[in-house]
Amino acid sequence: MSYLEVETPAVLIDVELAEANVRKFQDYCNQHALNVRPHIKTHKIPELAKLQMKAGAVGINCQKIGEAEIMAEQGLDDILITFNILGDAKLRRLRALSDKVSSLAVTADSSTVVRGLSSMFADAVKPLGVLVECDTGGHRCGRQSPQDAFDLAQEISALPGLRFGGLMTYPAPGGAAAVQSFMSETIGLLENSGLACPTVSVGGTPDMWRAHLVPAATEHRPGTYIYFDRSMVARGTCSEADCAINVLVTIVSTPAPGRAIIDAGSKVLSSDLLGLDGHGYVIGRPDVSIAKLSEEHGHLEYPADSEPLVVGERLRIIPNHACVVSNLVDAVHFVKAGRVDRAVAVSARGKVT
Amino acid sequence: MSYLEVETPAVLIDVELAEANVRKFQDYCNQHALNVRPHIKTHKIPELAKLQMKAGAVGINCQKIGEAEIMAEQGLDDILITFNILGDAKLRRLRALSDKVSSLAVTADSSTVVRGLSSMFADAVKPLGVLVECDTGGHRCGRQSPQDAFDLAQEISALPGLRFGGLMTYPAPGGAAAVQSFMSETIGLLENSGLACPTVSVGGTPDMWRAHLVPAATEHRPGTYIYFDRSMVARGTCSEADCAINVLVTIVSTPAPGRAIIDAGSKVLSSDLLGLDGHGYVIGRPDVSIAKLSEEHGHLEYPADSEPLVVGERLRIIPNHACVVSNLVDAVHFVKAGRVDRAVAVSARGKVT
Repeated sequence: MSYLEVETPAVLIDVELAEANVRKFQDYCNQHALNVRPHIKTHKIPELAKLQMKAGAVGINCQKIGEAEIMAEQGLDDILITFNILGDAKLRRLRALSDKVSSLAVTADSSTVVRGLSSMFADAVKPLGVLVECDTGGHRCGRQSPQDAFDLAQEISALPGLRFGGLMTYPAPGGAAAVQSFMSETIGLLENSGLACPTVSVGGTPDMWRAHLVPAATEHRPGTYIYFDRSMVARGTCSEADCAINVLVTIVSTPAPGRAIIDAGSKVLSSDLLGLDGHGYVIGRPDVSIAKLSEEHGHLEYPADSEPLVVGERLRIIPNHACVVSNLVDAVHFVKAGRVDRAVAVSARGKVT
Repeated sequence: MSYLEVETPAVLIDVELAEANVRKFQDYCNQHALNVRPHIKTHKIPELAKLQMKAGAVGINCQKIGEAEIMAEQGLDDILITFNILGDAKLRRLRALSDKVSSLAVTADSSTVVRGLSSMFADAVKPLGVLVECDTGGHRCGRQSPQDAFDLAQEISALPGLRFGGLMTYPAPGGAAAVQSFMSETIGLLENSGLACPTVSVGGTPDMWRAHLVPAATEHRPGTYIYFDRSMVARGTCSEADCAINVLVTIVSTPAPGRAIIDAGSKVLSSDLLGLDGHGYVIGRPDVSIAKLSEEHGHLEYPADSEPLVVGERLRIIPNHACVVSNLVDAVHFVKAGRVDRAVAVSARGKVT
C-alpha cells in the first residue's frame, strides 16, 4: 500500500536504502581489510541482522543479553556482547546462550567481571571469549592505560573457561589517533608476553569512514550506519538522501499562526537532541522546526510567510537519533520503491537486561 | 523475593505508595467536589487504572486509541481520549471502541476534526462525546479564545452523531487564573446560547494541589501523581519519599576515580531532563550525579572524597520523568513491603497510534 495509508505515527524503513548503506560500508571495509561486526541496537530486527551478515559481516554486536538471545533464536550465531556481564542470573543466561551459538564473546574491564565470567564457564567445553574494553578517550567503561589493559588480558588468559578474545573500544568521535596509540602499545605488551591478540574491535558510526586510520583495528562495529539519522547528517557522515528511517506523522492541530501540532512526541521521536537544535528534520520543509516535544505531541513552528501546514496533512521526519526511535515502537514498516511492503516486529526492542 | 534478586535494570513500583498517592489526591478532590479522571499514560497498566477507579475516579484519560483499546479490553468503561482523532482507520477504531464501553469521549480543536468524527458517528445509536480543547496558555493544541471555543462547541452540538461534552485544557503550570478566566468566559457564552457544558476538565500533576483554584473545573486529570518522579520533587508537588517508581541498577564499571557506570542508559531512564541537572536521583547518594547517558550505560560522577562505588553494587534511582520510563519497559516489578511481589506487563506500552 501507499505509505499514506499507514496509521500515524509510524516508523518507515526504506529497506533498499538500508541495504545500500550496509553494502557501501562493507565495500569500504573490504578495501581496507577490516571486518564488519554491525551493532544491532539500531534496528533490533533479526531480518536486518541477516541482511548485514549476507553482505559480508563476520558476526553481530549486541549490547544486552536479551538482544543476543533474540538474535540467536533467529539463527545469528557469531555474537559479541560489548557489556560487562554481572550477577548469577545473567551469567546463567550467558552460559545457555554460549551453548546455542557457534561463537560468543563479551567484553570486560575489571577483575570482578572476569572472575564472575570464569566461575560460570569454568566447566564449559567451549570457553567464553572475553575482550578487554579499553578507554581510548570515550570516558565510559574501559581500562585506563595499555598496561592496565594488558594486566586484565593476562588475568583472562589465566582463568578457566575463558579465552582472551582481544581488545575493544568505543572511541570518542575523531579519536582515531588515540585509539591507534592505545591499541598498538597494548599489542606490543601482549606480543612481548607471548599472548596473541586475535581481534582489535573499534566502534561507532560517527568515525566509520575513518576506520582505516586505525591500522591496529581488525574489525569495526557500526550501528546507526544502516539507517543513519539527522545527527549523522549534521556530522557529515551521510547525506539526507541516505537516511533510511523516517517517522511518518500527521498534523493534528494548527491552533495558531506559525504553530502546528503533530501526533508524534517524545514517546516516538525520543528527547535525544545529540547537540542539535530541534527534535528532527521535516523532509521538504527546512522552514519548519520541531521546537518542542510533549509525550504524544510534537510542536512545529514556522515563519509567518511560510506555506501554512494543514490539519490532516502528513509529513515525514528524519529523527535526530535512529537507535532510540526503533526502540520505542513494537513494529516498523518496511518501504520498498516508495510503497509499504509490510510491518516488521522490532523483536529485540525493550530487551533491557 | 528481595528486590536485590531482580535482574537489572528493572523498574520497581511500590504499589502501596502508589495507592497512597492515589488516595491522597482523591481525598483532596472529594473535599473540593472535583472529579478525578487519571491519565493512564504514566503507568499504562490496566490493574493500576482499576486501582484508581476503585479509589473513586469517574473514569480514565488516555492519549491514544491504542491505549484506550487495551484499557477497554480489561474492563475500563469510561474513557476520555484527549487527542484530535483523524483519518479513516483511527475513526473506525474509535467507533468500535465506542460500541464496547459505556462512555467514550474525545477532544477536538478544529472543524476538520469534528466533521471527521461526525462522519463516522452519524449513524451511531450512542453519540460520541466531544470536548472542546482550549489553549489557556499551554500553547499546544486548543482553541485560542473563549469565542473560538464557543464556536466549535456550537458546531459539535449541531453535527450528527456527536454530543458536546464540555471543555478541556492542559494548562501551563501555575496557570490556574488563566484557566479560570478562559473557562468562565466560555461557559458564559454557552449559557447565553442555551448550550449546557457538562464537564470542564483540567489536567496535570504539576498543579494538582492547586486544582481547587479553578472553580469552573469539574474534573482534574493527573497522570504522574500515581508514581511521582524527580521533576515533581523539584517542583515541590511531592517529596522524595512519595516516589513510587524506582529504577534498580547495577554498577558495572568503575573505570577511573569518581566515575562509575551503571547498566541503565537512555533506553531505560530516557533523555528527558525536564529542566533538571542530571538524569535522575540516586537514592541515598546525593553526592552522586547521573551526569550523562549512553543508550545502555549511565555515567555517574562523584567527588574524590565520597564513598567509592563498587562494581556489582546496586542502586535505586528516582527517574526525572516517570511516564517515559514506564513506556520503555515491557514489564515493571510490583514491590510490597520492600519485597518484589511480581512482574506486571505494561500492557499499553508502545501503543503509539
